[in-house]
Amino acid sequence: MNASSAQNSLPPNRYERAEYVKPDGRKLWLYSRTHIDVGDIPSPSPEAVAATPHLRWHPLRGEWVIYAAYRQNRPFLPPPNYNPLAPTRDPENPTELPQGAYDVAVFENRFPSLVPEPGPAPTIDGTLTADGVGACEVVVYSQDPNTNVGELDASHVELLVDVWADRTTRLAERGLAYVLPFENRGVEVGVTLHHPHGQIYAYDFLPPVQVRTLQMARAHRESHGEAWLETFVRTERAASTRVVTDAGEALSVVPPFARYAFETWIVPARAATRLSDLSQQERRAFAALISDTVRRFDALFEQPMPYLMTIHQAPTDGTDYPEWPLHIEFYPYLRAKGKLKYLAGTEQGAGVFANDALPEAKAAELRAVKLPGAS
Amino acid sequence: MNASSAQNSLPPNRYERAEYVKPDGRKLWLYSRTHIDVGDIPSPSPEAVAATPHLRWHPLRGEWVIYAAYRQNRPFLPPPNYNPLAPTRDPENPTELPQGAYDVAVFENRFPSLVPEPGPAPTIDGTLTADGVGACEVVVYSQDPNTNVGELDASHVELLVDVWADRTTRLAERGLAYVLPFENRGVEVGVTLHHPHGQIYAYDFLPPVQVRTLQMARAHRESHGEAWLETFVRTERAASTRVVTDAGEALSVVPPFARYAFETWIVPARAATRLSDLSQQERRAFAALISDTVRRFDALFEQPMPYLMTIHQAPTDGTDYPEWPLHIEFYPYLRAKGKLKYLAGTEQGAGVFANDALPEAKAAELRAVKLPGAS
Repeated sequence: MNASSAQNSLPPNRYERAEYVKPDGRKLWLYSRTHIDVGDIPSPSPEAVAATPHLRWHPLRGEWVIYAAYRQNRPFLPPPNYNPLAPTRDPENPTELPQGAYDVAVFENRFPSLVPEPGPAPTIDGTLTADGVGACEVVVYSQDPNTNVGELDASHVELLVDVWADRTTRLAERGLAYVLPFENRGVEVGVTLHHPHGQIYAYDFLPPVQVRTLQMARAHRESHGEAWLETFVRTERAASTRVVTDAGEALSVVPPFARYAFETWIVPARAATRLSDLSQQERRAFAALISDTVRRFDALFEQPMPYLMTIHQAPTDGTDYPEWPLHIEFYPYLRAKGKLKYLAGTEQGAGVFANDALPEAKAAELRAVKLPGAS
Repeated sequence: MNASSAQNSLPPNRYERAEYVKPDGRKLWLYSRTHIDVGDIPSPSPEAVAATPHLRWHPLRGEWVIYAAYRQNRPFLPPPNYNPLAPTRDPENPTELPQGAYDVAVFENRFPSLVPEPGPAPTIDGTLTADGVGACEVVVYSQDPNTNVGELDASHVELLVDVWADRTTRLAERGLAYVLPFENRGVEVGVTLHHPHGQIYAYDFLPPVQVRTLQMARAHRESHGEAWLETFVRTERAASTRVVTDAGEALSVVPPFARYAFETWIVPARAATRLSDLSQQERRAFAALISDTVRRFDALFEQPMPYLMTIHQAPTDGTDYPEWPLHIEFYPYLRAKGKLKYLAGTEQGAGVFANDALPEAKAAELRAVKLPGAS
């Protein structure tokens, strides 16, 4: 360790965090394993995008739908190869992020689906409407546009877990009912920005998937006398056929009820409800499994696997939910080399997924992957 | 009308139907506006594909997931440009369909996700399993591989509505609880077979989307004293902003709670629960609106619109469901020219759709479409 990095190092398991306001009024938060030191805070445009989202109630599915049509105040014509998530190099073409020392950046989405103060929802005869209250944030994983979560340093991914935990806590403090961090990756699923990043959606209501999880987890706890996570971890460790990697404090599993061929869940070895519940040791295991999962996906067909990753934590409405199973779900979209899984009639029209692969076989394939650099 | 067609014509509003067994044991049904007259009934292979699907219960989403891994008895290497849905021209390379006189064909899917007799489900410690009982059928709309539902004769689309109604009734007679006809169209959503066709899935349980619809429709009927469809049609006709085409007995509407930009629903003007409830006049209106919808979609961006169409009828478990709203949902996947809608974190992880367009604006765009051949 040289003098400079020793000087800048923080105590182990800690990070620095700083908050800024962008020229267009949006918030930016920087997180770093060393001291944060940045120049001017940029924004692609000095003027805010007018966002007045609202919700409408779907009367047959019984769920809210978000409507977010944007009025842009001026045209924005990015130069070729413009990467809004890279640090600003050319002040004539500002990006979302400053130059300087930091590891992870979070900022309020320029085109949000939900905002803190959306303005009143329209009145529609026969349709229930509501204000589009919430938050949409972008999480930039690294300053390097060419890396990914499988290639980052272990301590960098640990910081990312800390960032998700911190944003969840802070959005909860604003009174939002549910915080969903996720990452959607791959040109195959419409992601045109290759710089490694994820997003966070925060809702002022409990979304339907989470309503259902809570019902199911509560029923399990009542009938089994223990949290669903405890039963699941014990059962999967005993069966062992679907465990991909057991990291002690946490494990990755192709669940017996996987809806996507190589669907992989990361679960803590003990019942926990939010990332903020986890000890630093447990966060380290989570981070290691996130990297391990993405590296296995990418090695599987020798191409970057398009995937959706969602982090399922307990609701943030101020209540404790000891029955809630903290876990991360990865949906890899390739079911075989070159073959994407599409959601068609049975999935979208009936809510019944059809999987042409058995979880036991796919877990074996993921275990058998030869990871680059592994001995 | 010449002598031959007069001789072959059936009474108005009627069709002929014939049932066959393929060489590999699967059933085939042909439907025709004139008398059916065909040669040998083919199958791509004389041997059946072994399908033993089973269900596993997703303990946090509370829904069944279908597992259907196939064992093929022998390799099947189709020749270039082989179209399994075209009538068989070369007996050396049999397709799914015979040559001869018929308009629409339905056959049991060679790679079914659900079958009448699936064999026992495996036992998995900690996971509820069930036999994959049901049916999966393919509906070939026409012998012409280069047409589509927007281009077929009006009476041909009417026959298609009759076929969906007939298949629903017959699958209900087998004791299946829910019948879902659907069409998934477009290379953009993984459909590699361009021959115009749809599918039918029939389940031996009520799928989660339909469970929810039933709950919501029942609550509406109790609180409003009328079926949801009646309220909806009256409200949408009064507002008029979201009606695309009003055909009297039925109308097409971008619903106020659309989840896809150009999402379009076809609803009967009176409360009805199944296609088989509709009079021939109403079926004619439904057929006209199906064509009208697809023609507007295809003209919108001057390219075939990728879409999912699902037909929502009442459950077929022998009970009457006067509250059930019969309707067809079209989800067009393009939200703008060249821009596909993908389901990402908020849709898949939370069940909350985000739509960046307002239904009122998109209905106006669909109304403004200049249809080829229209005056």
